[in-house]
Amino acid sequence: MSAPWITYRPELKVMDCTIRDGGLVNDHLFDDALVKAVYETCVEAGIDYMELGYKGSKKLFAPGKFGDWKFCDEDDMRRLVGDNDGSLKLAAMADAEKTDYHEDILPKSQSVLDVIRVATYVHQLPVAVDMINDAADKGYEVTCNLMAISIVQDAEIDQALEILRETPVSTIVVVDSFGSLYQEQVQRLVKKYREALEGTGKEVGIHAHNNQQLAFANTIESIIHGANRVDATMAGMGRGAGNCPMELLIGFLRNPAYRVRPVYQVLQDYFVDLRNKCDWGPMVPYNITGQLNQHPRSAIATVSSDDRHAYVELYDKLVADL
Amino acid sequence: MSAPWITYRPELKVMDCTIRDGGLVNDHLFDDALVKAVYETCVEAGIDYMELGYKGSKKLFAPGKFGDWKFCDEDDMRRLVGDNDGSLKLAAMADAEKTDYHEDILPKSQSVLDVIRVATYVHQLPVAVDMINDAADKGYEVTCNLMAISIVQDAEIDQALEILRETPVSTIVVVDSFGSLYQEQVQRLVKKYREALEGTGKEVGIHAHNNQQLAFANTIESIIHGANRVDATMAGMGRGAGNCPMELLIGFLRNPAYRVRPVYQVLQDYFVDLRNKCDWGPMVPYNITGQLNQHPRSAIATVSSDDRHAYVELYDKLVADL
Repeated sequence: MSAPWITYRPELKVMDCTIRDGGLVNDHLFDDALVKAVYETCVEAGIDYMELGYKGSKKLFAPGKFGDWKFCDEDDMRRLVGDNDGSLKLAAMADAEKTDYHEDILPKSQSVLDVIRVATYVHQLPVAVDMINDAADKGYEVTCNLMAISIVQDAEIDQALEILRETPVSTIVVVDSFGSLYQEQVQRLVKKYREALEGTGKEVGIHAHNNQQLAFANTIESIIHGANRVDATMAGMGRGAGNCPMELLIGFLRNPAYRVRPVYQVLQDYFVDLRNKCDWGPMVPYNITGQLNQHPRSAIATVSSDDRHAYVELYDKLVADL
Repeated sequence: MSAPWITYRPELKVMDCTIRDGGLVNDHLFDDALVKAVYETCVEAGIDYMELGYKGSKKLFAPGKFGDWKFCDEDDMRRLVGDNDGSLKLAAMADAEKTDYHEDILPKSQSVLDVIRVATYVHQLPVAVDMINDAADKGYEVTCNLMAISIVQDAEIDQALEILRETPVSTIVVVDSFGSLYQEQVQRLVKKYREALEGTGKEVGIHAHNNQQLAFANTIESIIHGANRVDATMAGMGRGAGNCPMELLIGFLRNPAYRVRPVYQVLQDYFVDLRNKCDWGPMVPYNITGQLNQHPRSAIATVSSDDRHAYVELYDKLVADL
């Protein structure tokens, strides 16, 4: 009788996305102290990668309206992490059609960043491939987040994987943007991605959302079926319902390289306060959009309104509009 | 390519445990209006069973200190549900060594209850078997919750199943009292229980706790592997971290006999207010005890203290005491 859950795979790597995905809750207006605390926690906890934010276009996003982590300018990053001496790798996300990548992504030799994560919807794939090549040419490790996969047809996913297989990406991430996937669906997708990438050495990742309280479970499910790149955030902070909580993930992984105590420390020192100012987590409106496999924008609107508990009204409206 | 998650099994039945397990949060001191609303919601949502509370011993629990649902006296139940005309079945839990079952459980012909759920730790099994026989002789459907299974050895579980197999129980429930089980463990247990009960017509149930945000996921996992009796509670209300949320479960099950809208209605009408008075859910202290496979009492103490966010202190204490 085997008990694989008490073993570990050394090749599995964890990425902290707190500032990047969590920044969607507060327009990336984090205090420096918190960003620095998350960075130091990643170092102490033995986390492999930290995503500092987006490389957002200043033509689309006004710098006064958004915090520094919407843009990840070199000076802002170095203000907090210096030259980032150590084994933690730093990443920034570049959204297809929302990034001036030719100008804003510097050659790797001039940047403290190690990884560019290109995020794309399936219809933006040609742009994404150009971004991937651009970042790889500049010397970065490049990964690709294929978003909102729960509303993409199998033929389209297969085509996207066939194209991405030929690019220099090191990892392709299964992204459950709407938090709508159940374990069996995640299992099927992870297997599909792995089969499509067989023989390339490329890894499969998982980026889960917590609309149905399944982000941690779906992350475990992905790991069981061979995903070796795993996203999580401190206190599960992320857009809407949030992401897989780092405290649960690190506590689950048996690799002695990881330590959970620093994560509890940063939660208690910083995220209790932050929760009084920002709002995320698997609240009922997010349950509803997740189960209906819809973008969380209507749930975000409900949660931000005066009548944040108008669950039936939200449900009726979404069902009527199906 | 198959997609079993969009089908359903008509033989799968859902039990609402809100008042019974949720009552462990507030000493069963619920307003009548809320209990009645949960009852009516169960009827409207097509839920199969509702557990009204415990048959607690008045020698152990002072009636003034606890609400009516600690005892489920016949008059109190009938005050709210009348003769319970309709298809919803009513259950009460009888805890081994905490129930005066010979006196307090009436013959079925005199009771509005349909089901007695005998809850037992493995070391109490001889008492539990006597209680099972007593309730069956009195005319009830009887089920058995084998508790805290995550700290019981396989040989003991096997022995318990061998004994229970010969009793008149209709269902044996896998109970993750500490909320410590991961999907693979749940899968293994459900398969073990099913194999042990093969050929008897007895069903396997699942009662999950949400310490690691896995209650819904573990419930799905159990269903995938053949559990046909499934526990959940409104808003996930239950001791400590709570249980599998009914709103998620009913939204997931594809059986058209179930309707999720009445569940959203009762959440918005009653459970938003209740949350301001009572505290449950997968807070960090419960993550910690769940991951350490421990009884949640230390986490409950932390959450009830002045320093409810003292996560590191709780973690250090529990790790030091291992």
